[in-house]
Amino acid sequence: MKTKLSSLTVYALGFVLVFSSLATAQQTDPLPSWNDGKTKQSIIDFVNTVTTHDSPGFVSAHDRIATFDNDGTLWAEQPMYTQLAFAIDRVKELAPQHPEWKTEEPFASLLNGDVKGAMAGGMKSVVQIIMATHAGMTTEEFETIVKDWIATAKHPVTKRPYTEMVYQPMLELLAYLRANEFKTFIVSGGGIEFMRPWTEKVYGIPPEQVVGSSIKTKFEILDGEAVLVRLPELNFIDDKEGKPVGINSHIGLRPIAAFGNSDGDLEMLQYATSGTGVRFGLIVHHTDAKREWAYDRKSSIGHLDKALDAAPENGWTVVDMKQDWKVIYPMEKQ
Amino acid sequence: MKTKLSSLTVYALGFVLVFSSLATAQQTDPLPSWNDGKTKQSIIDFVNTVTTHDSPGFVSAHDRIATFDNDGTLWAEQPMYTQLAFAIDRVKELAPQHPEWKTEEPFASLLNGDVKGAMAGGMKSVVQIIMATHAGMTTEEFETIVKDWIATAKHPVTKRPYTEMVYQPMLELLAYLRANEFKTFIVSGGGIEFMRPWTEKVYGIPPEQVVGSSIKTKFEILDGEAVLVRLPELNFIDDKEGKPVGINSHIGLRPIAAFGNSDGDLEMLQYATSGTGVRFGLIVHHTDAKREWAYDRKSSIGHLDKALDAAPENGWTVVDMKQDWKVIYPMEKQ
Repeated sequence: MKTKLSSLTVYALGFVLVFSSLATAQQTDPLPSWNDGKTKQSIIDFVNTVTTHDSPGFVSAHDRIATFDNDGTLWAEQPMYTQLAFAIDRVKELAPQHPEWKTEEPFASLLNGDVKGAMAGGMKSVVQIIMATHAGMTTEEFETIVKDWIATAKHPVTKRPYTEMVYQPMLELLAYLRANEFKTFIVSGGGIEFMRPWTEKVYGIPPEQVVGSSIKTKFEILDGEAVLVRLPELNFIDDKEGKPVGINSHIGLRPIAAFGNSDGDLEMLQYATSGTGVRFGLIVHHTDAKREWAYDRKSSIGHLDKALDAAPENGWTVVDMKQDWKVIYPMEKQ
Repeated sequence: MKTKLSSLTVYALGFVLVFSSLATAQQTDPLPSWNDGKTKQSIIDFVNTVTTHDSPGFVSAHDRIATFDNDGTLWAEQPMYTQLAFAIDRVKELAPQHPEWKTEEPFASLLNGDVKGAMAGGMKSVVQIIMATHAGMTTEEFETIVKDWIATAKHPVTKRPYTEMVYQPMLELLAYLRANEFKTFIVSGGGIEFMRPWTEKVYGIPPEQVVGSSIKTKFEILDGEAVLVRLPELNFIDDKEGKPVGINSHIGLRPIAAFGNSDGDLEMLQYATSGTGVRFGLIVHHTDAKREWAYDRKSSIGHLDKALDAAPENGWTVVDMKQDWKVIYPMEKQ
């Protein structure tokens, strides 16, 4: 075999190799819907660090736990939380069986289309609506109700199915992390059993990797079949300081990366990023009034104030949705 | 190509094929520590049915959820639950910081080696001991305490590490199910955070697939670090009717197979086996006084009475440990 190459040949070969690796890198960009820049680079640097065996920041696959908020982080939460839209539709559907709701708040206002009026009672009203619509059936009956609703309900502004109102860049991020042997979890203030029926199909996240708020359930034998009945009683609120508690209860490991968009995610971000070793925190900042919504410190939905202030000192990445995302929703992809 | 074969050649070929497939089957027996017979066959038949694509009993991998009790099902629970031995050792270690325990029950009896006396107060005593030994530190500190203890503590009778007191046939069963794309979960009355530090190493079950009893935790920032502090307050008892509740909370799917050994597992077995489609329930019956322990209806530990009566009508497999298991512990393997 001829092994000696002229220096020109070596030069030319090197040239070809550099170009072909560039081409490969472009071909396999794991985050094609993210504009190039420091936000995208911070994600890629983190993943490279924790997955490079010789790196001092290497983390074994066992500990590659990433937790994601849902409302406002993985899908749209404006002009109202999707689960509230679900509850309102349920109130309307159940109204014929509850003639007393015609005069009873918060139901009367809801049935008159006055959501703001229904919410005037604050947390008490929310709990009343949740209990009236989410309890009193078996867990499997509730699953069917959610599946049927999510398959047909439409977003009030865009008229699209809610499961299409998910963020394409975040879907790519979930897939990128899993391709690098991360386990991805949802950790949401939303109802755990409201999310589980569709998260695997939409996000690739199976039911046991969903953490959320819950009401109590009770084991019963009904007509010879063992079932769990949903009770009108709060069990756990997976929000704010509840998120690390929910993470510990369901996962049992401290995440090395956390992704959120509001003050409800502050404690989760603190918990994930204050452990030893390399850590990653990210806040989705809704800055795009044209393609999505723009809101933060003054919004009651997705209120982002303290967590935004805490980001620089903690080294968290803040996504400027308008600048950093090429597309918002999957249907905008070319 | 020559395609026509004499009938003798076909016969001889068939003979070779039958023998080689028999040899392969023996070579790859997934449950080598189980004696052949109807118990072992019931397991293999179930797995074949749910994994055969053309079978009416086929179940997609997504729904292949199997739940295992721990104490008495995966490892020995006699002469006392391992977690109680842990708690007693912790009481002894903490005693110098608690001079009042010298006269205060149940601690005084425990420190005098009188476990029975300490337990005279029933559930109240157990809770007192758990709270004194399992709370008042961060979750990560508790994890270290458990890891250190389990690495050094010895079983009072066999003088072996507790993690060697696991049942070899059940380890094979866990591996067999996982090889057939089941997800295997522990669903135990024991403490969730007492199990998680070692279940992956011993059973191949990661922390997020462990369901158990728990005390409450609270998010705090201590010296600038976000931590969870363990509180002396019960959160959830994952036993009896609590097991299906814990399964639903952590897994979100109804198991298609459940494995237990006591009345504490009755509701889990009912829940797993009363769904639609092919289901499998199994009870480990401790019948081997020589190699392990023999106990059932009259035992306070691993009390097995109602569940044993319910087995025939529900079609649950009952393992006769003495007859069905070639070996009990891994160290007995040849």
